[in-house]
Amino acid sequence: MKVIVDAMGGDNAPKSNVQGALNAVKEYGVDVALVGDGEAILECLKSLVVDNLPKGLEVVHASEAVTMEDDPATAFRHKKDSSLTVGLNLLNDGVGDAFVSAGSTGALLSAATLMTKRVKGIRRAALAPVVPTGNGGAVLIDCGANAECTPEYLLQFAFMGSYYARKVLGRNEPKVGLLNIGTEPTKGTKLQKETYLLLQEANDAGRLHFAGNVEAREAVEGAVDVIVADGYSGNIFLKTVEGAGKFLGRQMKGMFKKNLLTKLAAVLVKDGIREFKALMDADAVGGTALMGISKPVIKAHGSSNATAIQNAIRQGFTLAQSGLIDDITANVGYMCLEREKMLDESGEKL
Amino acid sequence: MKVIVDAMGGDNAPKSNVQGALNAVKEYGVDVALVGDGEAILECLKSLVVDNLPKGLEVVHASEAVTMEDDPATAFRHKKDSSLTVGLNLLNDGVGDAFVSAGSTGALLSAATLMTKRVKGIRRAALAPVVPTGNGGAVLIDCGANAECTPEYLLQFAFMGSYYARKVLGRNEPKVGLLNIGTEPTKGTKLQKETYLLLQEANDAGRLHFAGNVEAREAVEGAVDVIVADGYSGNIFLKTVEGAGKFLGRQMKGMFKKNLLTKLAAVLVKDGIREFKALMDADAVGGTALMGISKPVIKAHGSSNATAIQNAIRQGFTLAQSGLIDDITANVGYMCLEREKMLDESGEKL
Repeated sequence: MKVIVDAMGGDNAPKSNVQGALNAVKEYGVDVALVGDGEAILECLKSLVVDNLPKGLEVVHASEAVTMEDDPATAFRHKKDSSLTVGLNLLNDGVGDAFVSAGSTGALLSAATLMTKRVKGIRRAALAPVVPTGNGGAVLIDCGANAECTPEYLLQFAFMGSYYARKVLGRNEPKVGLLNIGTEPTKGTKLQKETYLLLQEANDAGRLHFAGNVEAREAVEGAVDVIVADGYSGNIFLKTVEGAGKFLGRQMKGMFKKNLLTKLAAVLVKDGIREFKALMDADAVGGTALMGISKPVIKAHGSSNATAIQNAIRQGFTLAQSGLIDDITANVGYMCLEREKMLDESGEKL
Repeated sequence: MKVIVDAMGGDNAPKSNVQGALNAVKEYGVDVALVGDGEAILECLKSLVVDNLPKGLEVVHASEAVTMEDDPATAFRHKKDSSLTVGLNLLNDGVGDAFVSAGSTGALLSAATLMTKRVKGIRRAALAPVVPTGNGGAVLIDCGANAECTPEYLLQFAFMGSYYARKVLGRNEPKVGLLNIGTEPTKGTKLQKETYLLLQEANDAGRLHFAGNVEAREAVEGAVDVIVADGYSGNIFLKTVEGAGKFLGRQMKGMFKKNLLTKLAAVLVKDGIREFKALMDADAVGGTALMGISKPVIKAHGSSNATAIQNAIRQGFTLAQSGLIDDITANVGYMCLEREKMLDESGEKL
C-alpha cells in the first residue's frame, strides 16, 4: 500500500507534510511518495535530523506548486510539473493507491475530476468529512464542492455516504438523514422535497437505510450516521459546528482562567479538557474524502500540521483498502435517474 | 404600554404563560392582557396563590385554542375565538402594543401576515432571533419562515435586521453579513451572488453597512451584527448552533461528573458553568421577532417556561418602544426593486 502525498500543498508545507509522511511510514508501515520540490523536501528531512531516506519513503521531484493565486479550474493544466499534477498522474498510473493534498480544495477537485475522473455514472464529486457528533461522528456529504445540486446528486451522495459510513467508519446499516428544516416530507425547498421521495424509494427497495429528514440540531446530537446535504447547506452546517466548537472552547478556557481556584479546577479535569478539545480537533480527523472520484483522493485541510497530514495518509490507505470505490462502481445503476441515464447513454452533455 | 399574551400557546401553557405574565407585570411595570380560557387562567393564578388579579394584569376570555393538529395556514380563520385570533384582533384594534405567542410558528406567521398584515412593500415576514455569538449575539434573519427566497427578500431582511440590531440591540452602525460558503462575491448559489450586488449597492448608497459574505464559522465567532440568510440556510445555522451547544454542554457535564476530584472542580468553577449554560439558554433570549409585520409580534419558543415568556414580553414592549417598525415603513422604498415596485403599484399579485 503506497500513499502519494502532495508535499507542497497547505499553509505549513513542505515541513508538516514531510514530518507527517515520516510519522505515517513509521507508525503505519505504509509506503509514502512525497511529491514536490526535491531540494526543499530533503532540506526538511535534514532539519528533522533524518540523513537518509527511511525505508518506505520516496521523493518524486516536481518543479512547480499550485498556489492560491492560480485559477483552481485550470491550475493542474497550466502547471503540468506541479506537485498536484505529478501526484495525480502517479495515482492514475497505479504507482500509488491514494493521493493526499492539503492544497487548494478547488484545484484538487478540478484536477481529480478531470485527470482521475469520476466513477462512470456519478454526476459530481462531493466532499465528505466526518463531523464530530454525539454518536461519535457522522459523514457529511456534500460540504461545499457543489453549491447547487439536483435531487439526483443528493441521491448519489446518500449512497456514497452510506457506503463510507459502513466501510470506513464500520457502522452497520448506517442511518442516512436528509438535512432539513423539519422532519415532515413536505419541509424544505423543492430540492429536499424531491430528494426525500428518491431516498424513500431507495429505502423501500432495501438499498440504503433512509431515516427521513434530520434537523441540524438532531444531526449534531448524533441522530444519523450520514448527513446528506447540498454543498451550500452542508458547508453552513460544517462551519457552524466548527465555529460553535471554537467559540465554546474559548468560553471554557476563560472560565478556567479567572483565578487561582479555577486554575486548580482546570488541573483536576485536565483529562476531560483534553477530550473536549480532541472532539473539535480538525487535525485528529485528518482529511476529507473526495467521494465519487474513481480512485482514493483525500483533501487534508489547509492549515494541516504533521498530525493532520499523518491522519490524512491513514485515511487514504484505509479508503483504498476498504473496497468502497468498487461498491460505488458496482451499484451506480441504482443511483442514476432513468431520464438522466438515457441522456448519458445518448452521449448528451449532463 | 400593554403586551397581549396568548395564554394557550406553547408546551407549558397556560401555567408558564400566566406565571411569566405575572413576573413581567411585577418586574417591568408593564401591563399584560392574558388571552385564553378564562377559567383555566384563573385556576393557574389560584395555584400560584394569587387570589385577585394584580394591577396591570387583565384576562380576556377566548374559548378556543390553536393546536399543532390545526392547519397552520387557516387555523386563525377556522378558530375565530382562539386565543391567537382574539389576541391579534386586540393588537389590530390598538388595545395592546405588542403580541406574544408560544404557539405554532406557522399558525402565528399566517395569522399575523393575513390579519395584522405586513408593512406595505415588505414581501415576506421573517423570523429574526438573536443567536449567541462571540460578539454578544447577532440578529439572524430569516431562520425558517421562508425556505425559498428571492434576492429582494434578502435585501429586505438585511435592512430590517440592521434596524433591529441598532434599535433593539443598541449596536451602532451594525455590520451586516450575507451567510455564505466563502467571502468572495462569486461564492454561493445564484441567490447569494445576486443578493451580494444588491447589498453592495445599499452599502455604497450609505443605507446600511454591508460587511460582505460571512462564513458560518466567523458568524458564530461574532464577525457581524446581522446574519442575512434564506430561511432554509438560516434554520440550518440556528439549529446547528443550538445542537452544538447542547452536545458540548453535555460533554462538559460528563467531564465534571467523573469522580470526586472532578466534582470538586465543578464547584470551583460553578459561576463559569452558569455563564456557559446561560450563553446557550434559549429561555434567556425570550422570543423571535416576526420582522416585516406592521405591528410588534413575538414568537416565544414552544417549550417556553415562565422565564422565557417573561423575556418574550420584555422583547415585545422593547420592540414597540423602539420605533423600529416606523423605520422600516419610512425606508421601505429603498428595499424594493424597481420591477417589483411597479408590479406592486399596478396591483398585480406578487
